[in-house]
Amino acid sequence: MAYRFEAGRIYRMPTHFGPAFGPRQMPDGIAADPRSGPRRHSVAARFLTEAARLDAHLPEGFALRGEPVVTVEFHYLTGIDWLAGRGYTMVQVSWPASFSGREDKASGRFLAVIWENLADPIITGRDEIGHPKLYADIPPSRAWDGTHICSAGWMGFRFLDLEVSGLREVPLAAPAPPDDILMLKYVPRTGAWGEGELCQVTLTPGDDPHRTVEHRQAGTGQVRFHLAAWADLPTMHHVVNALAGLPVLEPRGGSVVRSRGGKSYRDQRILR
Amino acid sequence: MAYRFEAGRIYRMPTHFGPAFGPRQMPDGIAADPRSGPRRHSVAARFLTEAARLDAHLPEGFALRGEPVVTVEFHYLTGIDWLAGRGYTMVQVSWPASFSGREDKASGRFLAVIWENLADPIITGRDEIGHPKLYADIPPSRAWDGTHICSAGWMGFRFLDLEVSGLREVPLAAPAPPDDILMLKYVPRTGAWGEGELCQVTLTPGDDPHRTVEHRQAGTGQVRFHLAAWADLPTMHHVVNALAGLPVLEPRGGSVVRSRGGKSYRDQRILR
Amino acid sequence: MAYRFEAGRIYRMPTHFGPAFGPRQMPDGIAADPRSGPRRHSVAARFLTEAARLDAHLPEGFALRGEPVVTVEFHYLTGIDWLAGRGYTMVQVSWPASFSGREDKASGRFLAVIWENLADPIITGRDEIGHPKLYADIPPSRAWDGTHICSAGWMGFRFLDLEVSGLREVPLAAPAPPDDILMLKYVPRTGAWGEGELCQVTLTPGDDPHRTVEHRQAGTGQVRFHLAAWADLPTMHHVVNALAGLPVLEPRGGSVVRSRGGKSYRDQRILR
Amino acid sequence: MAYRFEAGRIYRMPTHFGPAFGPRQMPDGIAADPRSGPRRHSVAARFLTEAARLDAHLPEGFALRGEPVVTVEFHYLTGIDWLAGRGYTMVQVSWPASFSGREDKASGRFLAVIWENLADPIITGRDEIGHPKLYADIPPSRAWDGTHICSAGWMGFRFLDLEVSGLREVPLAAPAPPDDILMLKYVPRTGAWGEGELCQVTLTPGDDPHRTVEHRQAGTGQVRFHLAAWADLPTMHHVVNALAGLPVLEPRGGSVVRSRGGKSYRDQRILR
Repeated sequence: MAYRFEAGRIYRMPTHFGPAFGPRQMPDGIAADPRSGPRRHSVAARFLTEAARLDAHLPEGFALRGEPVVTVEFHYLTGIDWLAGRGYTMVQVSWPASFSGREDKASGRFLAVIWENLADPIITGRDEIGHPKLYADIPPSRAWDGTHICSAGWMGFRFLDLEVSGLREVPLAAPAPPDDILMLKYVPRTGAWGEGELCQVTLTPGDDPHRTVEHRQAGTGQVRFHLAAWADLPTMHHVVNALAGLPVLEPRGGSVVRSRGGKSYRDQRILR
Repeated sequence: MAYRFEAGRIYRMPTHFGPAFGPRQMPDGIAADPRSGPRRHSVAARFLTEAARLDAHLPEGFALRGEPVVTVEFHYLTGIDWLAGRGYTMVQVSWPASFSGREDKASGRFLAVIWENLADPIITGRDEIGHPKLYADIPPSRAWDGTHICSAGWMGFRFLDLEVSGLREVPLAAPAPPDDILMLKYVPRTGAWGEGELCQVTLTPGDDPHRTVEHRQAGTGQVRFHLAAWADLPTMHHVVNALAGLPVLEPRGGSVVRSRGGKSYRDQRILR
Repeated sequence: MAYRFEAGRIYRMPTHFGPAFGPRQMPDGIAADPRSGPRRHSVAARFLTEAARLDAHLPEGFALRGEPVVTVEFHYLTGIDWLAGRGYTMVQVSWPASFSGREDKASGRFLAVIWENLADPIITGRDEIGHPKLYADIPPSRAWDGTHICSAGWMGFRFLDLEVSGLREVPLAAPAPPDDILMLKYVPRTGAWGEGELCQVTLTPGDDPHRTVEHRQAGTGQVRFHLAAWADLPTMHHVVNALAGLPVLEPRGGSVVRSRGGKSYRDQRILR
Repeated sequence: MAYRFEAGRIYRMPTHFGPAFGPRQMPDGIAADPRSGPRRHSVAARFLTEAARLDAHLPEGFALRGEPVVTVEFHYLTGIDWLAGRGYTMVQVSWPASFSGREDKASGRFLAVIWENLADPIITGRDEIGHPKLYADIPPSRAWDGTHICSAGWMGFRFLDLEVSGLREVPLAAPAPPDDILMLKYVPRTGAWGEGELCQVTLTPGDDPHRTVEHRQAGTGQVRFHLAAWADLPTMHHVVNALAGLPVLEPRGGSVVRSRGGKSYRDQRILR
């Protein structure tokens, strides 16, 4: 007797063993507190680039919004409830954009690519949220001589270095209310190579009622993507090289933030 | 000016930087020979279990076919063309089943779950093929005192041990023509938690014209899945525990095979 | 013209490229502050065992001192100056003992074994200090549901689990002044297999003027070493099995301590 | 009652749990066959450099012998008996030299540095043999488009690339009988910082009766060491930079060799 999907439960491949636990579906009786975890150490840097370059990496329906400033963020997460207290690291690349669909209009941060050093959130994020997540080896950040140093690589090829230095304390409150985050969920069609099965704009509301910033510093930031040959990064040299090709017209500062708590993205939604 | 998808090219998230290279889309000018690579060292074991238990892990439209024999295979791959000569390891769990859809009928091996120790083929396989792939740490196999020893774990929890011993040479030709392989491609719907966005049966034709078996041995096999608490394997304890719960009514032998070459699964297709 | 050793500089194999940097020899111009780094997250548990068992693992000249209580400590270090801000993890097993040599007498903690997850401090510690260091894979600790969870393994075999729970705040000051630490530096003789080239008792003075405890909690501790076959841990199953064989007559509590700063062990000395 | 060292048995730190198993001391009843394992895939390249540079990295009593040709070899080992069938990788840098001691004279290959990607052979090799071993992350080699590609790094900094291409089959017999191998075993003195406790020349006889070459190819080789800042490789930038500073006056070819079997180095001896 074949199984049937239980109504109202989230499944992921393989679906054959029951609903799949993850950030948005915890086992019964596990009392997670979204205000206390995860703990997040964030190091970010921004730079001004050419508008036309960013435009060329926006999907249909999107347009640049305001200055063409790219933000690269490393988030070192620990104490994640859905991983029973374990952690992982996330790198996000984004810039400001607006979306105008058949029904919906939105503006915020366009999330161009995410790298993570754990496959589990890559799978849940791609499937459930539309997060454009790829894998990278990301060592712990280190602070040395007043500089916070972050990097990411793949199989021995380091493709991203980010440093923030000259830090000073700044108010805990963010400089601006958090933007909504926009991304494109895409799944190719099996067998009909070159066609898409699924192509949706999805949105994360910027507000996160569970997150508390505990410490915030601002300083000087520096980002460097390293050009890769196909053989260096055979599944993603095109991603890294596009980012390495963005001219840094002007650095726009960096930050180091320590925070705790965070939502599950159950408020993620599809725009039409 | 936003980008447009190029016709006939395979994309994966993030789509914003151009078509994505991978097993089914290589850069121009890269001359791969599917008859020489990858090289594959395969260690497998089989056991008879209870039909009803396997039935309960078959999707709608599927039925067990013949004896309820579970096959667990470790494939240690090297010299993979689309990874510029790198390798990774794959673990597959399958049993015989048939599928009867609205339009299509098929029978073969039902591929219940795959574990791999590299995120890149997990992403390409899930998205493009419908492979039910999860991540595991899989050390190199080792041969010691006549026994081939394989294992898989996640963050320090070893969930699978497989051993094959008592090996004898057997003819290079497979005991039977290879079965077609059946699987379920599934993507959950963002925001409508509990609904599916995509749920398709997909099929890999069993025939692989590029694969050459170089060495084949048969022997005694032993498989053991280890029961996990949620905190041990928070995203997949349900998968491992279901497999650990399958009674081993009778071992059905093991094998060690060395082969080379293999197709790209461009012949993967959707059944209806 | 062959090189000569520079006077007053620490060398390690290979000596041919100049003095070797490390915890006790930093490059000129690198201003490290031993009061600010490393940062140390320590999780420890203690248990009462049989005196005769510990006696059997003490070298000549040593005797048990007081109760036969074994301490197992995980120290998760970050911000280490001699690693330019990187970190690693250390596991220590010790019990109280006294030493009576031809010239020197001392009492303190006998450091029976150390595991670390980075080869560099293993090499510097064995060679320069006489630290009995071996390698282990040690994932980050995790805190879940009020319990701090630590483990160590090697090539997929988890040999040590330690948990501390039921935590309550306790005064920052240590319950007692820190003991001196005793260990045995030993190097086998090349070619004369079975003879020793070097066999010295060395001592670390307990006092560390640079270390500041920032947070201290006490609770219930639990330690479990797992019996290993030779094939599981072929270079150290004898170590793990000896520890696994110590009966836990009574748990003696656990602790979680956060501290910063620490000395370089330049005060390490040989006892005679 | 404290333990005593058993006569005729090899010990390593920690000595407190009994003799230590390893390459030169296997458990009773483990029947290893030094003619069948380990299996070894070796990729090597050679280059001519300036004699004076190599001289400056030779210890007292040593002199260059013949042409100043540096050999860099990657040995990918599997099926190692003393690791119960597991494997690891070794990188060796050597050049021809002779030694003239108070009593002994010898000539052969001077082994300047070894990197390995497993701590266990680093510990046994340094302590028992005098091997100048350090740790490196060394991914599997890969062959792509007729080129064998090897690399080594540490914590994300890749410090060595080696490639061999243009391969042709050559006779299985080595071009010359294997040289004896010379190295310097050194242990610093604890507490008396800057003094040595042990400084011995040790020698491995070149002959290995157990080793069988199965396949030998010769071609063009290329070696590149990458200059490192102290913060990139804080315990060994001086080693890597010295090697990076050797001018490549002329490449002297490369090789790819597959072999099996090997001795335990129980024939290692001290020269005086």
